[in-house]
Amino acid sequence: MSLMPEQTPLAPGATVGIIGGGQLGRMLAISAARLGLQTIVLDPAVACPANQVCNGQIVADYDNLGALSELAQRCDAVTYEFENVPVEGIEKLSERVPVHPGVRPLQMAQDRLVEKDFLTEAGLTTASYRPIESQDEIAAALDAVGGTGILKTRRLGYDGKGQMRVAAGAVPRSAFVELGSVPLIVEGLIDFDCEISVIGARGADGTVVTFDPSRNVHRDGILATSTVPCGVSPEVETRARSLAAALLDRLGYVGVVGLELFVLADGTLLANEFAPRVHNSGHWTEAACSPSQFDLHMRAVAGLPMVVPVRHVDAVMTNLIGDDVDGLDSFLADPASTVHLYGKSETRPGRKMGHVTTVSRRG
Amino acid sequence: MSLMPEQTPLAPGATVGIIGGGQLGRMLAISAARLGLQTIVLDPAVACPANQVCNGQIVADYDNLGALSELAQRCDAVTYEFENVPVEGIEKLSERVPVHPGVRPLQMAQDRLVEKDFLTEAGLTTASYRPIESQDEIAAALDAVGGTGILKTRRLGYDGKGQMRVAAGAVPRSAFVELGSVPLIVEGLIDFDCEISVIGARGADGTVVTFDPSRNVHRDGILATSTVPCGVSPEVETRARSLAAALLDRLGYVGVVGLELFVLADGTLLANEFAPRVHNSGHWTEAACSPSQFDLHMRAVAGLPMVVPVRHVDAVMTNLIGDDVDGLDSFLADPASTVHLYGKSETRPGRKMGHVTTVSRRG
Repeated sequence: MSLMPEQTPLAPGATVGIIGGGQLGRMLAISAARLGLQTIVLDPAVACPANQVCNGQIVADYDNLGALSELAQRCDAVTYEFENVPVEGIEKLSERVPVHPGVRPLQMAQDRLVEKDFLTEAGLTTASYRPIESQDEIAAALDAVGGTGILKTRRLGYDGKGQMRVAAGAVPRSAFVELGSVPLIVEGLIDFDCEISVIGARGADGTVVTFDPSRNVHRDGILATSTVPCGVSPEVETRARSLAAALLDRLGYVGVVGLELFVLADGTLLANEFAPRVHNSGHWTEAACSPSQFDLHMRAVAGLPMVVPVRHVDAVMTNLIGDDVDGLDSFLADPASTVHLYGKSETRPGRKMGHVTTVSRRG
Repeated sequence: MSLMPEQTPLAPGATVGIIGGGQLGRMLAISAARLGLQTIVLDPAVACPANQVCNGQIVADYDNLGALSELAQRCDAVTYEFENVPVEGIEKLSERVPVHPGVRPLQMAQDRLVEKDFLTEAGLTTASYRPIESQDEIAAALDAVGGTGILKTRRLGYDGKGQMRVAAGAVPRSAFVELGSVPLIVEGLIDFDCEISVIGARGADGTVVTFDPSRNVHRDGILATSTVPCGVSPEVETRARSLAAALLDRLGYVGVVGLELFVLADGTLLANEFAPRVHNSGHWTEAACSPSQFDLHMRAVAGLPMVVPVRHVDAVMTNLIGDDVDGLDSFLADPASTVHLYGKSETRPGRKMGHVTTVSRRG
């Protein structure tokens, strides 16, 4: 079924390409090094976070075909650290070198409508949703999802950007324009108890493993904390893991996925979205588990065995966003806290500067 | 007392120099990155293990004064990853930039006689020992340590090299020549139950912390495994930690030290030697503790707080020496094992290629 070049397990010394050199690329590169793999990062910014811990960087835009060609030439396998990489380049790239998790998850993650259609088809339930192509369509769509909902751009939204809450009869006339006059979806409001996520990984041989779900709290649309265990019943946890596994299997996925789920009062799980990459809500795994999500992703990309991750401790991951990083001293003085900074020289509001994982003995 | 430039805690973005780019430098550089520190490695080999995970490398010999001067210029603090760095260069360097753990521990660790004299003076007991300057002195010295002993070169011995076991009345006529016609010591043989080591760290503010001691097994003079807990009584463990603390305090040390101890049948602890750096017998801390020995060393060097390390699991660290690395697949398939390779392209007999830490729930 796949047109990708066949992949055998990479031997120590082989090179993995990472498209995107942010903090996720940085943590992936560290895991790669430990596995004896070399890394080449593609990122337009010279001082990108991953640069410090990789073997080399190609400084170019993600859609630069020459750069992608160089990446194919220098690498034995390639992955990406974020879902807004242009699909066309990845398609070309994957004709020459194995790219995991590949083109299809990328296409889905780039379009909320395609993503939700896929999730539904894979047997996951989502909030009710409708596509919207113009201002005129908003009212009817809103009606179909229960009268109140959240308008979201289909493409390129993240960390709460490109969203607007609207209620029937009170839709701003400029809503469609304000959101950029681009295709939207509206999602029905749901009354949920909490949001959890499951980090799952699937190996080249089809083995699927999942981490314990985390409970996630957002602030200003950006993940603030992830807590494990997440406090739902064992039965709900098991179902959450199964949903991640179903998604991975359905896509024939290779690598790590982050699946966000809403937990309703009756235990129903609604899929919110998935990220075809290591996920911020899995950063706690680095301090609390072996292997971590980064280790498992690099293993999958390199064709190495998947193993069931062991969680040694309970954990709370706190993102250091913008000025939060000024409060570093108290975390550094806390024996239970592992600090991880991303090497970003400039602090900006809303910018993820690092994270801290605070652990405690398993409850 | 110190002539070193004063040091305030380094802020994120500051640069630490690491003299030596082997596996220890590599693991230190990873810890530095997580703390938001940049790293410059000084090593004569371009493809040294640390190169992959540092911000920059100065390719030069360790006694190259120009290179050391460049290091002083580019770094806010400097450390070293091995004890055979020429002292003269480090002395010069430490007039310009804080160097931890500094010149004095280096001088001691480079000369077994100076080291043992210091350990004795610091209140640690060692095997009986005598200096030897010529073939003629061997018999009397051997007599003084009990009739049978191990001849060791005072300088530049490691991993079992530069050693010879001799007994009274059977000393080879060429012993002194065979060991290089250099100053020696003879150490009396001791009948010990096991060898353990303590990894200790001391911060710039004088705070001392220690890890749980490990039991160490050598093969062909090279560390094969380190196991935690080490199986001695709690009382002996406590004494072992105190000895490491005494050593650190006596030296006004800043950084991590590895102290090797023999445990006799009656619980007596005899100091074997100490390494003024992170230590192979502490590699398990990376998979089993937070913070690890590498984290604590970089914290000390950067003037950041020492915290008591928490051990989450029991652990056995196995070195991958030479061809051992061919057996990697079984470790990679074991969920309890964390593999760490050093990125060395060439496998050689006796060469440390990586290590594996296999963990289990705390007993």
